[in-house]
Amino acid sequence: MEEKTVEMITKLVMEAMNQKSTNEGFAVPVGVSARHIHLTKEDVETLFGKGYELTKKKELMGGQYAANELVTIVGIKLRAIENVRILGPVRKASQVEISATDSIKLGIKAPIRESGDIKGSAPIAVVGPKGVVYLQEGCIIAKRHIHMSPADAKEAGVNNGDTVSVQVENERGTTFNHVSIRVDESFTLEMHIDTDEANAAKIATGNIVRILK
Amino acid sequence: MEEKTVEMITKLVMEAMNQKSTNEGFAVPVGVSARHIHLTKEDVETLFGKGYELTKKKELMGGQYAANELVTIVGIKLRAIENVRILGPVRKASQVEISATDSIKLGIKAPIRESGDIKGSAPIAVVGPKGVVYLQEGCIIAKRHIHMSPADAKEAGVNNGDTVSVQVENERGTTFNHVSIRVDESFTLEMHIDTDEANAAKIATGNIVRILK
Repeated sequence: MEEKTVEMITKLVMEAMNQKSTNEGFAVPVGVSARHIHLTKEDVETLFGKGYELTKKKELMGGQYAANELVTIVGIKLRAIENVRILGPVRKASQVEISATDSIKLGIKAPIRESGDIKGSAPIAVVGPKGVVYLQEGCIIAKRHIHMSPADAKEAGVNNGDTVSVQVENERGTTFNHVSIRVDESFTLEMHIDTDEANAAKIATGNIVRILK
Repeated sequence: MEEKTVEMITKLVMEAMNQKSTNEGFAVPVGVSARHIHLTKEDVETLFGKGYELTKKKELMGGQYAANELVTIVGIKLRAIENVRILGPVRKASQVEISATDSIKLGIKAPIRESGDIKGSAPIAVVGPKGVVYLQEGCIIAKRHIHMSPADAKEAGVNNGDTVSVQVENERGTTFNHVSIRVDESFTLEMHIDTDEANAAKIATGNIVRILK
């Protein structure tokens, strides 16, 4: 077992030496997004009752929070995923963000989209304790992206809207291509990926990835 | 919407032109492995009854087959995954192959290993209609690899045991590094990945990936 471990480490080191070194690539911490839902004020009231307001469970970045409230989502083939977390505060449009694995489980065709870009995306039913909402569109698989401040962007040598490749150096070893850069004063440096991407690359929230030059 | 699509396609094409062309990389079809279990003759009898033999549902590559029989697996935190397909024929050691997503769901620490390399891997309980088996070790996450014949290996310019990177050119855009090459006369050309890897890269069985030079 130990010999095997040494052999594997040696192999990985030799591989790393043969590759171009990426230690100088700009380092970005990972933030893994589990499936979740954003709701309008109106949809919160339909699902939880007239005048109901979401309650905070945990503060997140950018003024968002994980709510205590959960819903069940049901796709057009009537398959359900229970206990989907609501993220507050309320938004102008309700939006469900799932993984590709979830979309297969639900039997729906959710497109890969940037948050907010829901036109023509998959329909989905949302069930709460006091009512149900049928979203004609709004179910997407989030497109991976990196949030950063203008200062980070300057240091990394990238601009808002750029597309980059990001290297994960670990046992599995994965490069994510077509990663969008989003720059805003309010953004904390983080690469947002979904649970499929995290599990396929064997990375978790807080792990460091590097932008390839 | 249409304008947006054209814009995206243009962006992807320009990105592709900026990258080194990989159209000349050796093409390999993908085979996605869902979670499954291999059993010893003894374990089949414990789970399904004395003298029981697995029945074929579907022929697979390399003389293997998907059996009609299913089991439930339970991790040390007593969480279960139902309807896990058995692959026949029986083997010398029982082995459960799951995804990283499954290992999180089960609450177990399954290592990433090549098939057959189960020493010190995660323990797991297997439940059948007539009995149960507790595997002290045997639960792994399969390490991604490419099966090929000696002729394919020659054409691709690789050898048994080599490690390569494999490029997926599509909407998500992913490069799988640390991919093992396994060469054998009996092997049909195919890259074996698990459901996490397939869903994260948005590829399915039969899609083509390319070995990077």
